[in-house]
Amino acid sequence: MSVNVVSLAEKVEKITVQNEYRIVAQMNNYQFKIIRMDREFIWHSHEDTDETFFVIDGELEIALRDQILKLEKNEMVVIPKGIEHKPRSIGECKIMLIEPGGTLNTGSAGGQLTDTREEWI
Amino acid sequence: MSVNVVSLAEKVEKITVQNEYRIVAQMNNYQFKIIRMDREFIWHSHEDTDETFFVIDGELEIALRDQILKLEKNEMVVIPKGIEHKPRSIGECKIMLIEPGGTLNTGSAGGQLTDTREEWI
Repeated sequence: MSVNVVSLAEKVEKITVQNEYRIVAQMNNYQFKIIRMDREFIWHSHEDTDETFFVIDGELEIALRDQILKLEKNEMVVIPKGIEHKPRSIGECKIMLIEPGGTLNTGSAGGQLTDTREEWI
Repeated sequence: MSVNVVSLAEKVEKITVQNEYRIVAQMNNYQFKIIRMDREFIWHSHEDTDETFFVIDGELEIALRDQILKLEKNEMVVIPKGIEHKPRSIGECKIMLIEPGGTLNTGSAGGQLTDTREEWI
């Protein structure tokens, strides 16, 4: 039985490519994914699940249709299922996502930014 | 629809009592609970679920039967279901737990430290 402590700062420094997800841990069917995000993402929603954003370092804005959420280091937010959102990093932002495994990054919106890779780091 | 950003540092400073859990967010049926832990806990396991420990600040040791995990600020670990563990803070440690709502802190061990309160902060 291997149980490993995960340092979010160390893991995220190992990612060499921006805007690609890497899985760092799994709890039941939920995955913890980290990303060095440097982009404005698209409007999308997840019809079947809530989704958690946690900022490891940097600044993240998440636009909802009626407000803009601003997150800094060690802040988090749960986006309820069905709620349209559009994340945008301010420069590079290091983020952890928590969501059921298999949740598509683009939700029901689809499109060319859809990333189905499931790579661990 | 209220969607709120949670600052873990701010929330944990609002807790006036040590060793009591406060819920700060919910994702589907999973809850994010924070605690100002200052104690050695008991050996226990959760038969039905994995459990995530995340250190907001301070130092935490989690004894397993075959190793001792040491966690510092911004480190996390997922304890698989059925695995006996005994958390111990080094002085006060500020922690976030992620687990399904209704998960008992003492798991199947029970006893007087069992805490069934579900208080939000």
